[in-house]
Amino acid sequence: MILFYDIASSLPTKAWSPNAWKTRLALNHKRIPYKTIWVLYADIEKASRQLGALPTRKKIDGVTDCWTLPCIWDLSTGAIIADSTKIAIYLDATYPASPESPSSPPIRNLMPTDTTFPLFMALEASMLPLFHPLYLFAIPASDALLDERSQTAFRFKREKVHGKPMHLISPRPGTEEDKVEWAKVEAAFGMVHNWCLDTAAAGLRRAVWRSADQVGEDGMPTGIGDVLTGTGDVLTGVKVNGEQKALTNGDGEKRENTYILETLEPTYADLWLGGYLIWIKLVLPAEKWESVCGWHGGRWARLVEGLEAGGWMEVI
Amino acid sequence: MILFYDIASSLPTKAWSPNAWKTRLALNHKRIPYKTIWVLYADIEKASRQLGALPTRKKIDGVTDCWTLPCIWDLSTGAIIADSTKIAIYLDATYPASPESPSSPPIRNLMPTDTTFPLFMALEASMLPLFHPLYLFAIPASDALLDERSQTAFRFKREKVHGKPMHLISPRPGTEEDKVEWAKVEAAFGMVHNWCLDTAAAGLRRAVWRSADQVGEDGMPTGIGDVLTGTGDVLTGVKVNGEQKALTNGDGEKRENTYILETLEPTYADLWLGGYLIWIKLVLPAEKWESVCGWHGGRWARLVEGLEAGGWMEVI
Repeated sequence: MILFYDIASSLPTKAWSPNAWKTRLALNHKRIPYKTIWVLYADIEKASRQLGALPTRKKIDGVTDCWTLPCIWDLSTGAIIADSTKIAIYLDATYPASPESPSSPPIRNLMPTDTTFPLFMALEASMLPLFHPLYLFAIPASDALLDERSQTAFRFKREKVHGKPMHLISPRPGTEEDKVEWAKVEAAFGMVHNWCLDTAAAGLRRAVWRSADQVGEDGMPTGIGDVLTGTGDVLTGVKVNGEQKALTNGDGEKRENTYILETLEPTYADLWLGGYLIWIKLVLPAEKWESVCGWHGGRWARLVEGLEAGGWMEVI
Repeated sequence: MILFYDIASSLPTKAWSPNAWKTRLALNHKRIPYKTIWVLYADIEKASRQLGALPTRKKIDGVTDCWTLPCIWDLSTGAIIADSTKIAIYLDATYPASPESPSSPPIRNLMPTDTTFPLFMALEASMLPLFHPLYLFAIPASDALLDERSQTAFRFKREKVHGKPMHLISPRPGTEEDKVEWAKVEAAFGMVHNWCLDTAAAGLRRAVWRSADQVGEDGMPTGIGDVLTGTGDVLTGVKVNGEQKALTNGDGEKRENTYILETLEPTYADLWLGGYLIWIKLVLPAEKWESVCGWHGGRWARLVEGLEAGGWMEVI
C-alpha cells in the first residue's frame, strides 16, 4: 500500500496539480494499491516534515529548503519519496512488470524498458523551459481554486517571480498578448508532436520503400519522391506514384498516434504530458481546452481521452 | 551498400564533423555495408544538389536553402537522406535488428526499441542549446583543419553568427573566459550525467531495500536513511546500517555506467554524445580532452574508449 500526498482544491475531484497528476496517472498505470492523502497547499511543509520527506528544492531566496508535493510513502518498503520524476523512477525500479508479478491484472512498466528514464528526463528538460507561458494562464486559474490560507502561501512566491499581483499575471482574454502567449503553449506541444511525426514518417517511408508496387521503371524504388499527405500536420496517407495510399504501420493497421512512443498503452512520457493537459482541462476556461483539442490533429484530445477511458484518471 | 557523404579535413582520419561522426558511429553500430565519400566543405551544396538530397535548413538569411552533411544514399532502397537524426531513424526503420537478419554478425538497433526515437529527440533538444560554448572552442579548431577554399565558405556564416573574425571566437587559453566557457561545456555533459545518476540511484536503492540485511529493528527496511557514497559524483557504493557496500546492479555485478541507458552496448544516445566527444578529442588541444576525461568520474573517457575498442570509430 502506498500513501500518495496530493494538494487539495475546491474542484469536485480535489486534484488539480500537474505534478501530482503525473504521480496519480503513474500509480493507476502500475496498478499498485494506493490511497490519496489530501493536504492543503499551506500545509505542505508541515506535512512533509512530519513525514520525514526530503526537501525537493530551495525557496526563492536560494537558501531555505522547500518541500513540494507529490510525495509518496510506500508502506511496503518504508521509502518516502518526493518529486514526481523520482517517484516514477522508484516505482518502476521497485515494482517492475514481470511475468511472475503476483498481482492481477499484472503490474505495468512506466517506461518500455527500465533503462529509458534518462531519455525521459531529456523530455522534461526540453519541455519545462517552454512552459512559462502555460503558467501565465494556469497559475492564476489554480490560485482561484485554493482556500484563503493556501492562497496567501501560493501567491507569495509566484507574485515575486512574475513581478505582479496574481490577478494581473494572466493575459486578458481576447487580447493580442493572450493570443501570442497561448500560441507559445501550442508551439511547446508542437515540438513533441514533430518528434513523433519525424519518427512515424520514417516508419511509413520504410513501408513505402518495401512495397513492390513502387519500383520505378529503372528498377529503383520511387520512395524518394513520395509525398506525405494529411490534414494540417497529421499524417494520414502517402502518395505513391501519384496514387493515394492510407497511412499504415508495418502490420497494415492504421496508425492512431495516440501515444508518443506509438505504444498501445501510454508510457510515462504520455503521463507526464497528460499531467499538464489535465491541468489545462480542469482549471482553465472551457475554450482553452477546446483550443488544445484542435492542435496537432487532435493528438492531445486523443491522449487525454485514452487516459480517461482506460481508468488512468481515477481519483482514489 | 550505403554511400556516406562526409566532410574531409587535413586530419589523418579525414573525419572531424560531430554530426557526420554520429552517422559513422551509427553505420558501424548497425553493421550495414557502407563506403565514405569525402566532400570538401566548399562543395557540400554542389555535391548534395547533384545527389538530389533535400536541403536540411535555411541559410543565415532565413530564406535561401542550405544543404548539410552527413547525407546517405542507400543504394538498396534508393533513399537519399540528409541530417544525422533523420538518418538514424531511417536506418533503424529500414534495417531493424531481427533474428531473421541475414547478416552475420547480426544487425543491431540504434535504439532499444524502435519507438524510443521521440525521446532521443528530447535529448537533442535539451543539449543543443547548451552547446554554444563548445562551438566557441571547436569551430575555430575545425576551421584550421580545412582547405583554403572551404575555410572561406566555413567562415562566412560563422563569423556573422559570432560577430567576430574566426581567430577571435575562441577564448584565449588560460584566461578567465576560457575557464568560464569550458565550465559551461562540463555543465552541459553534467546534466546528462545527473539523469543517469538519478536513474542508477533508484535501481541501487531498490537492491538495498530488497536485501534482507537492512530491515531495521522495527521490521521496516532502513533504506530511507542510506547514504550513497563515491568519489566526486560517481556512485561507487552505499552505506547500509553504517556498513559500506559496493554498488551493484540486480545481478550483483558492479555497475560501470559506461553507456547512458546502462545497456551493454551503446545506444544512439551514446553515439550522439560520442560525436561531440570525438570532435573534442580530435580537434582541440590535448589538455581539453584530458580535462573531459576527468569529468563525472571518467564517464566520457569510458564512453569513447568503449566506442574505440568495439570498432565503432572505424573510418571506412
